[in-house]
Amino acid sequence: MPLSSAFIQKCRDLLGDRQVIADTESLRVYECDALAAYRQLPELVLLPETVDQVQALLALCRRYRVPVVARGAGTGLSGGALPVAGAVVLGLSKMQRILAIDPENRRATLQPGVRNLAISEAARPYGLYYAPDPSSQIACSIGGNVAENAGGVHCLKYGLTVHNVLQIKLVTMDGELLVLGGGGLDTPGYDLLALAIGSEGLLGVVVEITVRLLPLQPRTQVLLAAFASVEQAGAAVAAIIADGLLPAGLELMDKAAISATEAFAHAGYPLEAAAILLCELDGMPEQVEADSRRTRRLLQQHAATEIRTAVDETERKRFWAGRKAAFPAVGRIASDYYCMDGTIPRGQLAHVLQQIGALAEASGLSVVNVFHAGDGNLHPLILYDANRAGDFEKVEALGGRILELCVAVGGAITGEHGVGHEKLNQMCVQFRAAELAQFHRLKQAFDPLGLLNPGKAIPSLHRCAEMGRMHVHSGRLPHPDLERF
Amino acid sequence: MPLSSAFIQKCRDLLGDRQVIADTESLRVYECDALAAYRQLPELVLLPETVDQVQALLALCRRYRVPVVARGAGTGLSGGALPVAGAVVLGLSKMQRILAIDPENRRATLQPGVRNLAISEAARPYGLYYAPDPSSQIACSIGGNVAENAGGVHCLKYGLTVHNVLQIKLVTMDGELLVLGGGGLDTPGYDLLALAIGSEGLLGVVVEITVRLLPLQPRTQVLLAAFASVEQAGAAVAAIIADGLLPAGLELMDKAAISATEAFAHAGYPLEAAAILLCELDGMPEQVEADSRRTRRLLQQHAATEIRTAVDETERKRFWAGRKAAFPAVGRIASDYYCMDGTIPRGQLAHVLQQIGALAEASGLSVVNVFHAGDGNLHPLILYDANRAGDFEKVEALGGRILELCVAVGGAITGEHGVGHEKLNQMCVQFRAAELAQFHRLKQAFDPLGLLNPGKAIPSLHRCAEMGRMHVHSGRLPHPDLERF
Repeated sequence: MPLSSAFIQKCRDLLGDRQVIADTESLRVYECDALAAYRQLPELVLLPETVDQVQALLALCRRYRVPVVARGAGTGLSGGALPVAGAVVLGLSKMQRILAIDPENRRATLQPGVRNLAISEAARPYGLYYAPDPSSQIACSIGGNVAENAGGVHCLKYGLTVHNVLQIKLVTMDGELLVLGGGGLDTPGYDLLALAIGSEGLLGVVVEITVRLLPLQPRTQVLLAAFASVEQAGAAVAAIIADGLLPAGLELMDKAAISATEAFAHAGYPLEAAAILLCELDGMPEQVEADSRRTRRLLQQHAATEIRTAVDETERKRFWAGRKAAFPAVGRIASDYYCMDGTIPRGQLAHVLQQIGALAEASGLSVVNVFHAGDGNLHPLILYDANRAGDFEKVEALGGRILELCVAVGGAITGEHGVGHEKLNQMCVQFRAAELAQFHRLKQAFDPLGLLNPGKAIPSLHRCAEMGRMHVHSGRLPHPDLERF
Repeated sequence: MPLSSAFIQKCRDLLGDRQVIADTESLRVYECDALAAYRQLPELVLLPETVDQVQALLALCRRYRVPVVARGAGTGLSGGALPVAGAVVLGLSKMQRILAIDPENRRATLQPGVRNLAISEAARPYGLYYAPDPSSQIACSIGGNVAENAGGVHCLKYGLTVHNVLQIKLVTMDGELLVLGGGGLDTPGYDLLALAIGSEGLLGVVVEITVRLLPLQPRTQVLLAAFASVEQAGAAVAAIIADGLLPAGLELMDKAAISATEAFAHAGYPLEAAAILLCELDGMPEQVEADSRRTRRLLQQHAATEIRTAVDETERKRFWAGRKAAFPAVGRIASDYYCMDGTIPRGQLAHVLQQIGALAEASGLSVVNVFHAGDGNLHPLILYDANRAGDFEKVEALGGRILELCVAVGGAITGEHGVGHEKLNQMCVQFRAAELAQFHRLKQAFDPLGLLNPGKAIPSLHRCAEMGRMHVHSGRLPHPDLERF
């Protein structure tokens, strides 16, 4: 159903025409996020500049029963900001002020549209930085990071967004402003802060974020190790963690990733290796030296065929250059690729890579594997050609199988990209009816009309029942109070 | 209203007589938790031994509309397990099996009645331990730790319970079993794990917990520093944290605490000091050495009048002995004491201690201060005589003022003890109507009949309105849909 002209006029009254986008050409920018395989042209995009405007808009949308899809920088990889028919897109990109850098308490307070990297840039003069660093950090916004609980290369040591946010202000669908969290380790009442982080725009719209800043590490060291098999690389990862080392980053690339990357970025990776590990250590110089020695010893014990230590900052950056260029590099060898995101127990690493290989072969597709190995977060890149009919359907099917494999080995269908539109079916595999029903009840407690980002992140019980993933008693779902979801 | 005999009989049928307590003498044990100033004799205590029994009991209670107060070891300090008239107490103490120690994945899976210290004892042969260490760790249970999001001396570095739990199984008031969380950093869907931790028995009953185990640190070092003023000690704390050091523990004791403790534990604390700091550093030997040097330098720069470094494990234990005996030591100089728990920004430490002194003097009571200074968690102990009429009312009033002071300086009314029965009024100070209303809506999503631990943790909007803390429009609360709370 198209939006009523009365509603659109009220939006214009609230924001002024400059902050309302309704012409098809300009709307085109908003038809997808970075998961560009799915598109839906929105009818109206609203670009508020103040918290008051967000509150007023949500209250207005509620009055008119208009669904709302919030959007940050549009860099999300699971379709969380994909427009929904009949809904408005609420773009937070104009709210991009850094409200405070507080070096004494090591905090920064930010509007949601502030770019991730801009936080660390603003904190640098004080010797501080913001730890989570998604690979899109030059473009992605802190509001989107909160919505998706974004991670990055360093989350093994420094955690995801949820571990680095102290407080948020959240506007509910009523237009009410909630202040969640605080400065301390504990806050009284239910932990609505953790609940809201990663809720993918389904519970409210984040309009202000206070993050923790960390002191810049005085020393950073990177080791590169090559292995003759993925199994050996996986065993080395397990040994490093088991030894009590906590690298800032611990990345694994398979042969296909090494070869694609090397051709593009010339990082000097050993092309004959079946897998390489990049291990970054940071901290005080004495600690980094000691950790580096221990890591080298462990790598040797686990049959590394070659171990290099970056001698200076230039070489360190070169070691990373390949890994960081992995996605564009793959973009050169295939016309399109689809980046998956799942998590597995570290011990399952070699087994899962082998299974992914078998699944890919069966479907006739190629897969390049890049892992945040330390925390078991895998990013298989499935190569395909979007212009070849039926290719994307095969990719979707293979992607689904890979996620289901993650669940089967005791892992999860997300690592840092969220569920969004992409992984709805796999949610039926990850969870039983009891948990899904509780998710829906919780959603009702925030958004009883179901207007916030409808159809995302949590599948309806009907959807799971149709997939055969939920037991249906004589035509009724196990949770009849939730049948309308 | 007394419990119906039909209900009691059904409980006996489910559990057998051995697991049902109904005689007054035995019930007396359950009339309070460690906040013994508040007591209520329960009518019936149920002691399930299996998850199935918990599920059946909760479903039964729901059917008979009987409220349920879950109880761990009864060591809580905020009255979270205080019985409620008309409710049953659900004791989890018989469910105390360690289900698995998994050294490879560094996890332990536990029944809720397992004692906190027993986890580390079981993990020790594998070189592992469980980090959160409430001072009651010899007695308190992991289930209670989860319910209250317990902390301990080392939570500055290692976090609270919420930061160390990977998964829980939660039985809802429907008798449904939910599996929340998983092994990875991120889990899809709403973060019900973080939500449930610290929810004080209001959302469900925890029947199984999987915790993260950490490698035992190869080296631990403790420094003791004395100061001529609390301000200087506070400045030293701020300087240590600002320098990027992350001590495992950083404790402050004021003059009254030093003197009470020294008389009891003979730890060799400097009696002439206005305050002492205990700073524990742990990690690899090289790192501990380097951190220790940096810490000493900072302490010197911040006017420490004396700095001692424990030369061996015996001296380290002696340094801690005083701090650990602080509560019993205070029990010797006063017939009764009341332990408060609040959090403040570190920078407010000296100011808050001074204000607490002024408030105490105005009320004619003495206060002894013990701080987890590193994370701003204070534990003022208010001394009184329970047998003197009117004394406890003065203590309650002073305690309330101290918590409100925490809120006024930007802190919180909890640190690690929870809200329970104790801090309901201060919740009206900590939160505005919008957040409290959202808490109640969330509670309804789990427990629509309000049967789980009623009257705890989240005050009714009416209560706050009566305190004058909430604006009431022509006799109606701002959230009319929540009037029944």
